[in-house]
Amino acid sequence: MRPEFEVRDTDLAGRIGRIRLASGRVVETPAFFPVIDPIRQEVPLSEIREAGFDQVITNAYLLLKRHGWPSQGQSVHYMLGWDGAVMTDSGAYQILEYGDIDVDQRTILEYQKRIATDIGVILDIPTGDVERGEALATVKRTLERAREALEVIDPVNDDILWMLPIQGGRHLDLLEYSARESVRLPYRMYGIGSPTVFLEEYKYEVITDMIYTVKRILPWTRPVHLFGAGHPLIMPFAIALGVDTFDSASYILYARDDRYMTDTGVYRLKELDYFPCNCPVCSKFTPEDLRELPKSERTRLLAIHNLHAIRRSIERAKQAIREGRLWELLEHTARAHPSAMRAFRKFRKYYRLLERGTASSKGTVKGLRAYGVESLWNPRILRFKSRILAEYIPSVSEFYRGKRVVLTRMPRDSSKCRPSSENHYLVYYTPYLGLVPSELCGVYPTIQLDYAIVTREVAEDLANTIVAAIHKMLSKGASLIVIEVDEDSLGMMLKKRLSGIRGVEIRTRRLRAA
Amino acid sequence: MRPEFEVRDTDLAGRIGRIRLASGRVVETPAFFPVIDPIRQEVPLSEIREAGFDQVITNAYLLLKRHGWPSQGQSVHYMLGWDGAVMTDSGAYQILEYGDIDVDQRTILEYQKRIATDIGVILDIPTGDVERGEALATVKRTLERAREALEVIDPVNDDILWMLPIQGGRHLDLLEYSARESVRLPYRMYGIGSPTVFLEEYKYEVITDMIYTVKRILPWTRPVHLFGAGHPLIMPFAIALGVDTFDSASYILYARDDRYMTDTGVYRLKELDYFPCNCPVCSKFTPEDLRELPKSERTRLLAIHNLHAIRRSIERAKQAIREGRLWELLEHTARAHPSAMRAFRKFRKYYRLLERGTASSKGTVKGLRAYGVESLWNPRILRFKSRILAEYIPSVSEFYRGKRVVLTRMPRDSSKCRPSSENHYLVYYTPYLGLVPSELCGVYPTIQLDYAIVTREVAEDLANTIVAAIHKMLSKGASLIVIEVDEDSLGMMLKKRLSGIRGVEIRTRRLRAA
Repeated sequence: MRPEFEVRDTDLAGRIGRIRLASGRVVETPAFFPVIDPIRQEVPLSEIREAGFDQVITNAYLLLKRHGWPSQGQSVHYMLGWDGAVMTDSGAYQILEYGDIDVDQRTILEYQKRIATDIGVILDIPTGDVERGEALATVKRTLERAREALEVIDPVNDDILWMLPIQGGRHLDLLEYSARESVRLPYRMYGIGSPTVFLEEYKYEVITDMIYTVKRILPWTRPVHLFGAGHPLIMPFAIALGVDTFDSASYILYARDDRYMTDTGVYRLKELDYFPCNCPVCSKFTPEDLRELPKSERTRLLAIHNLHAIRRSIERAKQAIREGRLWELLEHTARAHPSAMRAFRKFRKYYRLLERGTASSKGTVKGLRAYGVESLWNPRILRFKSRILAEYIPSVSEFYRGKRVVLTRMPRDSSKCRPSSENHYLVYYTPYLGLVPSELCGVYPTIQLDYAIVTREVAEDLANTIVAAIHKMLSKGASLIVIEVDEDSLGMMLKKRLSGIRGVEIRTRRLRAA
Repeated sequence: MRPEFEVRDTDLAGRIGRIRLASGRVVETPAFFPVIDPIRQEVPLSEIREAGFDQVITNAYLLLKRHGWPSQGQSVHYMLGWDGAVMTDSGAYQILEYGDIDVDQRTILEYQKRIATDIGVILDIPTGDVERGEALATVKRTLERAREALEVIDPVNDDILWMLPIQGGRHLDLLEYSARESVRLPYRMYGIGSPTVFLEEYKYEVITDMIYTVKRILPWTRPVHLFGAGHPLIMPFAIALGVDTFDSASYILYARDDRYMTDTGVYRLKELDYFPCNCPVCSKFTPEDLRELPKSERTRLLAIHNLHAIRRSIERAKQAIREGRLWELLEHTARAHPSAMRAFRKFRKYYRLLERGTASSKGTVKGLRAYGVESLWNPRILRFKSRILAEYIPSVSEFYRGKRVVLTRMPRDSSKCRPSSENHYLVYYTPYLGLVPSELCGVYPTIQLDYAIVTREVAEDLANTIVAAIHKMLSKGASLIVIEVDEDSLGMMLKKRLSGIRGVEIRTRRLRAA
């Protein structure tokens, strides 16, 4: 059986999927692959599994350098003492760190075949954070390598799932070029290279731009890996853009440095008086306890905590995909750190990609929740709004003949919605969703929207939607549109923009005392 | 030693404190007391402790009904097999549920003394969710009981820390009356009664109003308990308003009903495909695993998870108090559920209370983070802004003589701030904080503010602050104020509001291409 990828559920551009490997092993995505050091592994593999990871990544180049060629039949699983899925990196990271390595691609590919890795990587040239000229060279060299590799490997028929990293770094035009060229090659999995430097600097918006650029081009049906990303804050955003797998050594590198990952950023252990976490480590120890432990024990425990923090972030995103509430999770996560917010503000631009996997409804989908201006960009809301304007506001003049259009505020209790009649076309308006023709009152998501606030931007958006619809109706033949407004800021906006327009009658309702 | 309460750190109206009990036991606050059923306790006390709780609450009335009077020297700790702190409720909950109980207050108080509880409660009459007339009766009756109790107990000298519940429910005037009367009595700890019904209905804004009303009146130096509150979503808000202790049976009641608590609301177990949590239970089991377990085992595990979820919520709030970032935690939590946002929107009204514990700076305080309109109500920001306007904008006309005032945008890199000079008074402006006179550039929090976005409301707020300061300066004798604005929406607002004002000169800077 050749490796296969199937998508089982989607929300935004994120998906829950399964990579079925040739060995029969299955990786449910989104999945994180902890980096395993074959020589100096401070967290035993049994504890990696206990922390919830059935897949790891290790480095084929380092394995080769340290162990040489194993006897036939000794797989990387045997070498590591691990029966879960194994991804092997090729030594590209060492190129990024040390400039070059002393093994050629053919050797690394042959070696990955010999050790029967589940997911292998060609020997690409990572871009890192360099100027355009240098970046272009890495892109071209990586594509050359990808073509040369085909002399040694067969990504379509091999048991190994071969991954092609896409380079270009922060140079989005180069990334786009790289992605377009990569799609022409027969690889079945792609990687996004070199975000580590931007992760370290909390430049999440650079990373989300990189992912978006690449994902717009790559086929929906193939898994995409994000290299070196192992932080709970970035994961929901990367997952929402369609990243399926991650790897990182951050859990242990941070731990060695007494750094502790949380949903809201990284702490030094010495900064913490309380653990804002309930993982098995944090349930058992206080920060003070940990500070008093010997270094190696402390490192191991911090690493296990970090793994739990990563796992929680992924599980939350998966549950949110099931519920169709990934956008709401992003709104929440954006308030965890200003860097997260900076990345999230970019998501407005990503609508075309995000809309892909956003189901209009599905069995498990839950009601929409809205909290302010960012909720206006929720693809489920945007789609509803544009569908109403395009499809539900009638476009034929016959419809409007002898008919009065009435626009009024939708009652919070939808059972109080009234139907339209022969000479009376009733359209409700409501924050976030915009217009709800009376025949859609009660239909998802019109009554499943729970909003707590109407900010200035939300009121303006509603005014814009109403004004656009009125102009459409007038241009399509409506001759009398009555709009009922309240004595609030929305009412004032509407009066200002609609008064004096022929065919529009504004009626102000007095606010009754509550 | 009599029971004592000391406050060790504060942020907003929240505090980290210690209740030192007469027995020598110490409860670090904020603290949650899980309700223990002396007959049918499905989660063994050893597992309650493992989940991080060194204190429990049990019901003196039920103990008395079921066990009768113990022999002298058999304390409630002995009866429960628990050496941590014990709070005993008086049977008031049973009054709420069943109308009345068959034991009088004197008996319940004597019983609590006999079993040597650490924290005892008088036999109050809970209000629940009733109309005003009925509520008033419960308030009066509770105050009577509080006075009558003094014949049996001595809250000032007893070993037991006696708690006086404050009733009134959602009737804030009654709550206020009740609090004012309660303060005149010699109790050393107060409770806030009957929020359970509002908690169940997610009416968090009713509860925060109740807490605010009471806390405004109660002395800062005494601990305050919130009855029946055991949900991770409400806790940060209650803690921020100064609640020190909580109790609830929700962890087990929900578990029996297959309900699972999270940061973002309560799920039914059947709704979950993934656990968005990394507690010891959720690290070991999947939702499917749990569904397949026998009912009693499943209940126990769900209850342990629920306890971990509650503990995490409290530990996060405590760490946030240490960092002076409790407001930021509320902003984050407000996006976890629309009900949380509805409660948070009320916090704007609570400024006077919240400002109490908000340190201007302390050793552990971290930089401010701002995310939008709600950040404008951060007491640290409000306080800075009002201090600047009141104290730093000079009020004497001599200051302005022969001097030009220059207002200009603060550079993101504060090392680029320039000083004022003899005939040149330089004031920077910046979103959220408002005005920063050049001599304060670099002083906390002027450069420790990390903001990701400037929403419409934030820009308007900045415009208002600038206009107010200019009017003050003009009225105090300034004759030439030059304001440099950019070609952005703030610049447009300022031009509109300031042009034509004598003494104000507006200079527009061209935006340079980035």
